[in-house]
Amino acid sequence: MSTMPVSLFSSAIYSGLFADDQLVDLLDDASDIAAMVAFERALAKVQGELGVIPAEAAQRVAQKLDQVTVDPVSLKSGTQSAGIPVPALVSELRNHVGDEDGQWIHWGATSQDVMDTAQVLQTKACLDILEARLRNLVDRLEAQSNAFSKVIMAGRTRSQISTPITLGYRIAQWAHPLIDAEAALSALKKTALIVQFGGASGINGAIAPNGSSVSSKLAEELGLQDSPSWHSNRSSVLSLAAWLQQICAALAKMAGDLVLMGRTDIAEVSAGIGGGSSTMPQKANPVQAETILVLNQIAINAQTGLATAASPVEERDGAKWPLEWMFLPQMLIATGVALRHAQVLADSIQPNPENLKATLAANPEIMAEAASFILAKNGIARTQTKELVAKAAASDRPFADALGDLSTLEIDWQAALDLQEAVDPSRAMSARIFARRQLQDEN
Amino acid sequence: MSTMPVSLFSSAIYSGLFADDQLVDLLDDASDIAAMVAFERALAKVQGELGVIPAEAAQRVAQKLDQVTVDPVSLKSGTQSAGIPVPALVSELRNHVGDEDGQWIHWGATSQDVMDTAQVLQTKACLDILEARLRNLVDRLEAQSNAFSKVIMAGRTRSQISTPITLGYRIAQWAHPLIDAEAALSALKKTALIVQFGGASGINGAIAPNGSSVSSKLAEELGLQDSPSWHSNRSSVLSLAAWLQQICAALAKMAGDLVLMGRTDIAEVSAGIGGGSSTMPQKANPVQAETILVLNQIAINAQTGLATAASPVEERDGAKWPLEWMFLPQMLIATGVALRHAQVLADSIQPNPENLKATLAANPEIMAEAASFILAKNGIARTQTKELVAKAAASDRPFADALGDLSTLEIDWQAALDLQEAVDPSRAMSARIFARRQLQDEN
Amino acid sequence: MSTMPVSLFSSAIYSGLFADDQLVDLLDDASDIAAMVAFERALAKVQGELGVIPAEAAQRVAQKLDQVTVDPVSLKSGTQSAGIPVPALVSELRNHVGDEDGQWIHWGATSQDVMDTAQVLQTKACLDILEARLRNLVDRLEAQSNAFSKVIMAGRTRSQISTPITLGYRIAQWAHPLIDAEAALSALKKTALIVQFGGASGINGAIAPNGSSVSSKLAEELGLQDSPSWHSNRSSVLSLAAWLQQICAALAKMAGDLVLMGRTDIAEVSAGIGGGSSTMPQKANPVQAETILVLNQIAINAQTGLATAASPVEERDGAKWPLEWMFLPQMLIATGVALRHAQVLADSIQPNPENLKATLAANPEIMAEAASFILAKNGIARTQTKELVAKAAASDRPFADALGDLSTLEIDWQAALDLQEAVDPSRAMSARIFARRQLQDEN
Amino acid sequence: MSTMPVSLFSSAIYSGLFADDQLVDLLDDASDIAAMVAFERALAKVQGELGVIPAEAAQRVAQKLDQVTVDPVSLKSGTQSAGIPVPALVSELRNHVGDEDGQWIHWGATSQDVMDTAQVLQTKACLDILEARLRNLVDRLEAQSNAFSKVIMAGRTRSQISTPITLGYRIAQWAHPLIDAEAALSALKKTALIVQFGGASGINGAIAPNGSSVSSKLAEELGLQDSPSWHSNRSSVLSLAAWLQQICAALAKMAGDLVLMGRTDIAEVSAGIGGGSSTMPQKANPVQAETILVLNQIAINAQTGLATAASPVEERDGAKWPLEWMFLPQMLIATGVALRHAQVLADSIQPNPENLKATLAANPEIMAEAASFILAKNGIARTQTKELVAKAAASDRPFADALGDLSTLEIDWQAALDLQEAVDPSRAMSARIFARRQLQDEN
Repeated sequence: MSTMPVSLFSSAIYSGLFADDQLVDLLDDASDIAAMVAFERALAKVQGELGVIPAEAAQRVAQKLDQVTVDPVSLKSGTQSAGIPVPALVSELRNHVGDEDGQWIHWGATSQDVMDTAQVLQTKACLDILEARLRNLVDRLEAQSNAFSKVIMAGRTRSQISTPITLGYRIAQWAHPLIDAEAALSALKKTALIVQFGGASGINGAIAPNGSSVSSKLAEELGLQDSPSWHSNRSSVLSLAAWLQQICAALAKMAGDLVLMGRTDIAEVSAGIGGGSSTMPQKANPVQAETILVLNQIAINAQTGLATAASPVEERDGAKWPLEWMFLPQMLIATGVALRHAQVLADSIQPNPENLKATLAANPEIMAEAASFILAKNGIARTQTKELVAKAAASDRPFADALGDLSTLEIDWQAALDLQEAVDPSRAMSARIFARRQLQDEN
Repeated sequence: MSTMPVSLFSSAIYSGLFADDQLVDLLDDASDIAAMVAFERALAKVQGELGVIPAEAAQRVAQKLDQVTVDPVSLKSGTQSAGIPVPALVSELRNHVGDEDGQWIHWGATSQDVMDTAQVLQTKACLDILEARLRNLVDRLEAQSNAFSKVIMAGRTRSQISTPITLGYRIAQWAHPLIDAEAALSALKKTALIVQFGGASGINGAIAPNGSSVSSKLAEELGLQDSPSWHSNRSSVLSLAAWLQQICAALAKMAGDLVLMGRTDIAEVSAGIGGGSSTMPQKANPVQAETILVLNQIAINAQTGLATAASPVEERDGAKWPLEWMFLPQMLIATGVALRHAQVLADSIQPNPENLKATLAANPEIMAEAASFILAKNGIARTQTKELVAKAAASDRPFADALGDLSTLEIDWQAALDLQEAVDPSRAMSARIFARRQLQDEN
Repeated sequence: MSTMPVSLFSSAIYSGLFADDQLVDLLDDASDIAAMVAFERALAKVQGELGVIPAEAAQRVAQKLDQVTVDPVSLKSGTQSAGIPVPALVSELRNHVGDEDGQWIHWGATSQDVMDTAQVLQTKACLDILEARLRNLVDRLEAQSNAFSKVIMAGRTRSQISTPITLGYRIAQWAHPLIDAEAALSALKKTALIVQFGGASGINGAIAPNGSSVSSKLAEELGLQDSPSWHSNRSSVLSLAAWLQQICAALAKMAGDLVLMGRTDIAEVSAGIGGGSSTMPQKANPVQAETILVLNQIAINAQTGLATAASPVEERDGAKWPLEWMFLPQMLIATGVALRHAQVLADSIQPNPENLKATLAANPEIMAEAASFILAKNGIARTQTKELVAKAAASDRPFADALGDLSTLEIDWQAALDLQEAVDPSRAMSARIFARRQLQDEN
Repeated sequence: MSTMPVSLFSSAIYSGLFADDQLVDLLDDASDIAAMVAFERALAKVQGELGVIPAEAAQRVAQKLDQVTVDPVSLKSGTQSAGIPVPALVSELRNHVGDEDGQWIHWGATSQDVMDTAQVLQTKACLDILEARLRNLVDRLEAQSNAFSKVIMAGRTRSQISTPITLGYRIAQWAHPLIDAEAALSALKKTALIVQFGGASGINGAIAPNGSSVSSKLAEELGLQDSPSWHSNRSSVLSLAAWLQQICAALAKMAGDLVLMGRTDIAEVSAGIGGGSSTMPQKANPVQAETILVLNQIAINAQTGLATAASPVEERDGAKWPLEWMFLPQMLIATGVALRHAQVLADSIQPNPENLKATLAANPEIMAEAASFILAKNGIARTQTKELVAKAAASDRPFADALGDLSTLEIDWQAALDLQEAVDPSRAMSARIFARRQLQDEN
């Protein structure tokens, strides 16, 4: 039984929905091993350069570890007994390199140094993908927001029709939290992409006083930020998790809206590729949007799992640390897959003008707020205003006409309650949202 | 990329710790498909028997579906587009059986009928394993509780030494919630192992008025309880999740205790096979106990995920249902693996008499409560009692001797404060705990 | 600052939405104290009767504790220093009773005995209220399901119109999980309403060998089930939490449906008393349904909190136990308030026949599945069937007429596709759901 | 029933443990109202200044709202019917101001503008307190880390004694994530302390084209950052929650360590004021540390609640928004109270030199890693090294002596394995941790 897909992320059946070849490649067993080997290789290299271990042995180690491949299955029994794969891996690497040089592998390091740094290296590679997907998505949402900046639709608050907005503004709302995530990314990278190197109890005791210089050079070699050892400080993982969850939440907002907008009985906007039913020929299920909502919930739970892992006792806590191995890859994949589905949705946003208009026509009281403001600005007292608008809304006549009849003001109600009045403020607010993006680019 | 192990449950590296061949076999892609095919086969069979579909065609379908194997990969693209594998699977099955007979496959069923019932069938098979593991574990804990019923140890409340108990009683405490779980199992099976058959919107409209008779016969054929359709009622899943979490919590209590008991600086009781360190030769990490604690946290999060899935809107909610596919297998595996590790721990409980005694000797005030009660029973007022006991505890002389000096009562303090006094009440309470088990057996 | 309402459950502003006078009365500080005093009183009483403490002193204690009132504020500083209110409370009670008799208060008990039993007593009182509310609600849903058993509506799966059902069946679905909860209640009471009495480390060491007899008589006195001490076994709390969450999930399903059904742009069914807007005169926000959804989420989180509390280490775990004080009252209140809001909704279910019909008329392909089955039963091959139905659905002519034109079968399509065909199967499935209720009553 | 304390945060009994007068004052009903009034007042003021509403009326409104007090109870029934307190509050304010001027109150605003901005104002005030507490705590931890920089203690990884560290380094580890939180605060304030002003559907339609200028001036007036409307973008709340949870996690790490360090059977370091037991005179329960652990779990759950609230559908989602009212105050209070308890702990850290030494003496193999490195550096092959160290550890002779006997190297083992060797690297790593703090100060 070498293959055991019992997760939506690894099942062959569900992989098109919940997994992602690109990200899985960066997070699977082979990648785990490659990242750990990369750490050991870089460690030997820089320790050789700094004279902490013999320079020539270090060079040979670095060279040999450049080509090594380790079968995940070969680490199974060692991992089962130690709770971590590092002792078995180091032993394999030493065998590969030979005893003489091999003893300098893992010099002054502890398992958590290897695994945390490997996790960061994998995260870094994933973040590159997520960043690109995020940028593409916001780009597209910005374009679509502009493209649909004149498409009037009924705004809805608390499931009730409120006041008119545009589809362009609705889309801008989707982009808003994603732009926040874009803005936060460069700081996150500095916080989260940090090297781990502290040795057994975190003070680099075995190679004192070289801990600091090795750490700094190791970070540089691996393209990471330097950091004091953080075996028991999981802030960087929490920050990463928070950022990922923020994206998932944003995408779930968009997805939730699209499920509603695409309901058979609303059908104002479609997006995505509808899924068929096994028994009902007419159905077009909102598969991508639903999947995003599922992934967001998975991400929320994974974040909770990471939060519980963030208070390890003493210098290393074996009852909490493995939670990160479970939940961090889940979050990275969930976010990446959700972004991919969201792109499909964003690319295919299609308003249905007929239905959009029908909704507006059927709900003239959507202009009730506007009417109230016009009356108030014209000196009608609030109590009267309320009564007047209510009467007009209840009337059999068109809302604007009824207002004309009921109020004594000289107002062209038809013009004043024109739905097109929503275009400019929608555009202005959308512009304010996207302007924050340009600000970032300038910085 | 047919294999994508990005979960602790499916990674080859971590499979010895977090996965379980037996359970994974019951929950992987192949098992998913087999269970769905079993549903379709049973449905055709009983509908043939009831004359809902042509009897002979039904027989041929049932026969042919008995041997069919479907490659999980072949369902990937269909699942990606429909959000569920059933349309693709049914289409494959129809191809396999041939158009003429194949049209009677899935007759009057909806995808959720197939997938929910398949989930229940898989759960049923898992429960058999869990039940056996649970029984073996409690059996062993009962035996160990008896075996160590005279081993005195310091009780601890809120991290402080409290009063003496026995190791046997500590073990009985571990068994206590597991016995509750054993007791709840037969009711759970009735509640949770139910057939799902409701058709498109849950009312068996397409085969009316035969819904009820098909459902009942289908349940019988599959060895499940009959039920009204429960597409939007996830109580059975919640009950199952609650039961699984209860077991995980119980095992985590045992594991948490064993991590403490086996700390280097306590080392009163060992259990499990200690894991080595990559850099510290002397270490024996409590791998099994730690892993149980991790699995419990995973189970807690999975239960939360299932709870959020339990309020589907309308007749089917595509944004909630898939959460069950994610989290229910997680819970089943986590529970099963935790039980397996717990068995290893239970089998290997080993008290260290020297350390147990040393702790007791170093903390004579463990008898402070007992002394207080003796004084009170002998008519010493509470305020005096308190003062007296405090003085005795602070004295340089042995606690019993100091009490003799300080109190004027004619009491053989040595005998009265004998630690052995804890044996009988410990045994009595342990017996009360295990007695509940016999009660069950009798019912 | 004696009043500090910083919770939706205790804020005066929000108390109409999120709190409940009846339940709050059973869970507030005064009730906490009363329940703890009830424990101490009953303990003295039964210990007096059993001769464990002097009979006359016991009588006096029981008598005096019957009238005592303790100001919550007087326990604040003692609770702050001990982490629990019991030492301060016991000291107050002893003062109240006088030193001589007072020393027999709390005899052989530990704080957790007092607090756990008090929690159970409070829970018991709350369960009485919840049980009555649950029964009333299901009664009403059953009545409404019957009342609307002929109101045809469009079923929806995955946000798409599926096949016709009745409003009566939709309501039966809401009742379904609630009936499960009703069925589970009597077993839950036996499991969860148990006395706690174990003394310092759970073995009743201080009053050996009287632990068992005191426990049994104490349970009887307090109207609870007897139990071995369960200081470190929180199964009963978990079972209770699972039951509460199950109810909340059920109510959230109903609420989620009603939010959708009452959307301005669907408006097929209204329920509840619509909330106004500060700026939009036309709005009728679904306040009760929304609040139920919020309460369900609060309950989910509280259940998670209780799950994390369920693995206490050693004989008492001060870092986990208080989570129950936080989350159990939350769950009880959330459930009770959600039931109350659900009753308002159930009482006021009001179909809008015009809109129900308009949806059905606008979506004739709702009968597509039925048409497929008719064609198949009449020997039309599946591939042809699919094509035919799709063509008919796309046609400009009414669906039934188009089918008549396109198919060569002699079928009265108008009659065959009559929406009324949904009434009987809807009624049959509803009846199966409610039948489970009668079964319970008979047992 | 005006007082209904059914939460640990509002109970009089538990308020010393779980609540905080300062924070509660900033988050209770009165503060809610004051913050909402502050919004309405500032809105009228700036709209008057900008000429959006009549300048003189605006001045009178601003003046009158400066003194108004509103009884929370007066908002109960309005909140119950509307689901939010704003309509009732606005109506009260208009009554207070009088009809003529009152109509200009809440001009162009929606309830969520008021409540979100009020929430931000309250958060801002709380953050000031949290910031000060955080700074004081890290200051103290830094001082204590320095004070105990030479106190050698056994490091522990995965519950096993690992290698020597100092108490100073252990304390530096506690400070590490807190320093991260300090570093993140100024960016957080810019992200999270933002004004909300969008009107009914978020585009300021009613006061177009003045939305942007009013928003900007309103932000300035209230001391907040300006922002496009964020009714459906909850990133700022998520960021705040992540920051709060990060602090709680950090404090829980410290608390978890202190519970272990203060166990009766370790007792190497004490901190806090020990809580007594109701029946065991000798106990000193770690009340503050336990409470922090509880608060962290409460914060984790609250963060999860906020995450589920972060994907509102459409322009406002009444089923998600109230979750913030529940969980954000919980997090703010939990964090503030945890900081307060942590300060008590930090202030009272007290090593017990005797016990610290006893542990080290009892576990000479704590130097096993060091011995291995010395042997390796002296050319002994790894396999031999391992064997040699294991033999020495198992020997009856002191570890250093045994090594001298077993190895043929000319090494002063006594000196080489001196525990004092841990001081310098501990200090160096601590210094690297605290140096990051100075960096911040310089920026």
